[in-house]
Amino acid sequence: MAAEIIHPHTADTGDPIDPAFALHRGGKMEVRATVPVRDADDLSLAYTPGVARVCTAIAEQPELVHDYTWKSSTVAVVTDGTAVLGLGDIGPEASLPVMEGKAILFKQFGGVDAVPLALDCTDVDELVETVARLAPSFGGINLEDISAPRCFEVERRLQDRLDIPVFHDDQHGTAIVTLAALWNAARVTGREIGELRTVISGAGAAGIAIAKILLEAGIGDVALCDRKGVVHEGRDDLTPVKRMVAELTNKAGLTGSLADALKGADVFVGVSGGTVPEEAVARMAKDCLIFAMANPTPEIHPDVAARYAAVVATGRSDFPNQINNVLAFPGIFAGALQVRASRITEGMKLAAAEALAAVVADELSADRVIPSPFDERVAPAVTRAVAEAARREGVARR
Amino acid sequence: MAAEIIHPHTADTGDPIDPAFALHRGGKMEVRATVPVRDADDLSLAYTPGVARVCTAIAEQPELVHDYTWKSSTVAVVTDGTAVLGLGDIGPEASLPVMEGKAILFKQFGGVDAVPLALDCTDVDELVETVARLAPSFGGINLEDISAPRCFEVERRLQDRLDIPVFHDDQHGTAIVTLAALWNAARVTGREIGELRTVISGAGAAGIAIAKILLEAGIGDVALCDRKGVVHEGRDDLTPVKRMVAELTNKAGLTGSLADALKGADVFVGVSGGTVPEEAVARMAKDCLIFAMANPTPEIHPDVAARYAAVVATGRSDFPNQINNVLAFPGIFAGALQVRASRITEGMKLAAAEALAAVVADELSADRVIPSPFDERVAPAVTRAVAEAARREGVARR
Repeated sequence: MAAEIIHPHTADTGDPIDPAFALHRGGKMEVRATVPVRDADDLSLAYTPGVARVCTAIAEQPELVHDYTWKSSTVAVVTDGTAVLGLGDIGPEASLPVMEGKAILFKQFGGVDAVPLALDCTDVDELVETVARLAPSFGGINLEDISAPRCFEVERRLQDRLDIPVFHDDQHGTAIVTLAALWNAARVTGREIGELRTVISGAGAAGIAIAKILLEAGIGDVALCDRKGVVHEGRDDLTPVKRMVAELTNKAGLTGSLADALKGADVFVGVSGGTVPEEAVARMAKDCLIFAMANPTPEIHPDVAARYAAVVATGRSDFPNQINNVLAFPGIFAGALQVRASRITEGMKLAAAEALAAVVADELSADRVIPSPFDERVAPAVTRAVAEAARREGVARR
Repeated sequence: MAAEIIHPHTADTGDPIDPAFALHRGGKMEVRATVPVRDADDLSLAYTPGVARVCTAIAEQPELVHDYTWKSSTVAVVTDGTAVLGLGDIGPEASLPVMEGKAILFKQFGGVDAVPLALDCTDVDELVETVARLAPSFGGINLEDISAPRCFEVERRLQDRLDIPVFHDDQHGTAIVTLAALWNAARVTGREIGELRTVISGAGAAGIAIAKILLEAGIGDVALCDRKGVVHEGRDDLTPVKRMVAELTNKAGLTGSLADALKGADVFVGVSGGTVPEEAVARMAKDCLIFAMANPTPEIHPDVAARYAAVVATGRSDFPNQINNVLAFPGIFAGALQVRASRITEGMKLAAAEALAAVVADELSADRVIPSPFDERVAPAVTRAVAEAARREGVARR
């Protein structure tokens, strides 16, 4: 059927054995029963005839599905494989290792059961319909690695339609962690975020979501740059989403290139995958904050950035201040599921960012504006804050 | 929003506490990582950046998805909630406890990871499209509790479209176990199945599938009865599926009622949920075989049936010879997944039935024509037979 398969995990290719392949052999997760199925008595409760009484109860009182199934601990990790990591549109099958990875992080950090679902469709209508049909089995939907601008419409339409949280992590997870780090970086340098003029490089899902949450948090000003420079209302090449961005951002009325925008800016946030030259960074304001989050290669090397910036953050684990979504999504869904939230509101996102920032409030330094992904205080703190915010905002159902 | 919820598992309703509700509290299953995620090194292999190398390899060689994800150990248990147990159309949410139960049986008996997916749609086109879009994440599709006649078309179209096994267990699981028991029951009474005239009561998914597999296995004759009596070509009220049944079955050209058909019949197979009067059974042939499989109430009480029959089987665990699908589906999918079968052929189903019958070949008696669901020899025997048959039939991919 196909050409002979070369197995990268075996030595017979002549290549060195890559430990990532060895680890992925057979996948990274499994399903397990949490109740005994040892004998006929067990079976008569967990399956027929006992299960019929539970089904009947749910049919009569639909809310009981949250009590007597795994729905309320379970999230679908849904992708169409179109914007996977930095790899782009690699299709559903090839995206599965990332979705499985995400699923095990959900469990490890948030105690959330997550099911990877890589869908064989990319049309917005089809994605929305498919996820809506899947919704009865899940307590929440984590959208992942769906390319812009489709991701915005898919998320919005599903949020309008479903009564469970729908959360595109590439947007909001990144935005929440960035905001938490920025709050702490401002504190470390003795400023308020209302004083800061920010330039974001990258006008995709993450960049736009970061711009929005910074505005909600009261940032002084924020300008978004795509490959053609600052997104502003004078441009005639903007997509509808970028047009909306142009209306919301850039109070200063900047035009021109990213380098132009960076002159005198207080904050650089890079989610572009591109690079920014040292000369441009050198013209930023004194004690600037540089978040060069492209992976695996930051927009500017952290050591170079540190010549000019008071605080440097990246997406990498081998430098200080790692902006990593795993700091947010497990606790956000765990908190939302705990109170059976019908959606994840802006207030819940801000509460998550506040809780995340507060974890390291007493140990702040330029090299510690955000906790480590393995800091065990993080997920419980975010979970609690999100659950409380959901109650406050009236979207909790218990 | 809704009326106050009464929790059947708590004593505050004044009702006795039902242990089935206590057991179902919080659901019956969870997802677990099978690889460590303890530190940054683990994360760098299971997630970024290591996972990107695995994704890239799958994008280049799609077959590798079977090696480096959980796809090849994982089955979707898909329903639309329209024909759940004997409860009928109770909707997707209320069907979830059954799907979870099925999922944990898959794991317990077959080592297969199964994900319950109760879909919020009942249209054939929508069901087919939805499952087809889900297929990249799974090694097989177990359709469950979808009402007839939609179940036939859904299964057939998905089998035509997908390159992974699609198996409607209510049809084929029941048929395989019934055939195994009938082979052994014939042996116990010193007959060949080619000598037996069979009457099936119930012309839904299970009844039609049993008729088909009995014909493939060389049954003497088989007539199917619905509520209006024998399905025969002279009737003008038949659905397209029943018209096909009328063409394939009833060599004897029977007409009239179920009771008429039972006169002198060798075998009664009940999958109707109805009842059959003792007088009708009394007119069956000497040493007849009665499989009264309606649950929880057999079509005729086994003690009454035993007055006339040489072998009696039911669907219940508290009588001998329990016809239980769990004897088939875990091993069938385990065998198909083991060799990465592209479909489950008729030959694989017959091989499963033969292997199942053979488990008790040396211990046959009228009360032991089929193994217990907890007989540990069953799943390995079925798995092996199905995998071998898949290779023989050319549908194995390794």
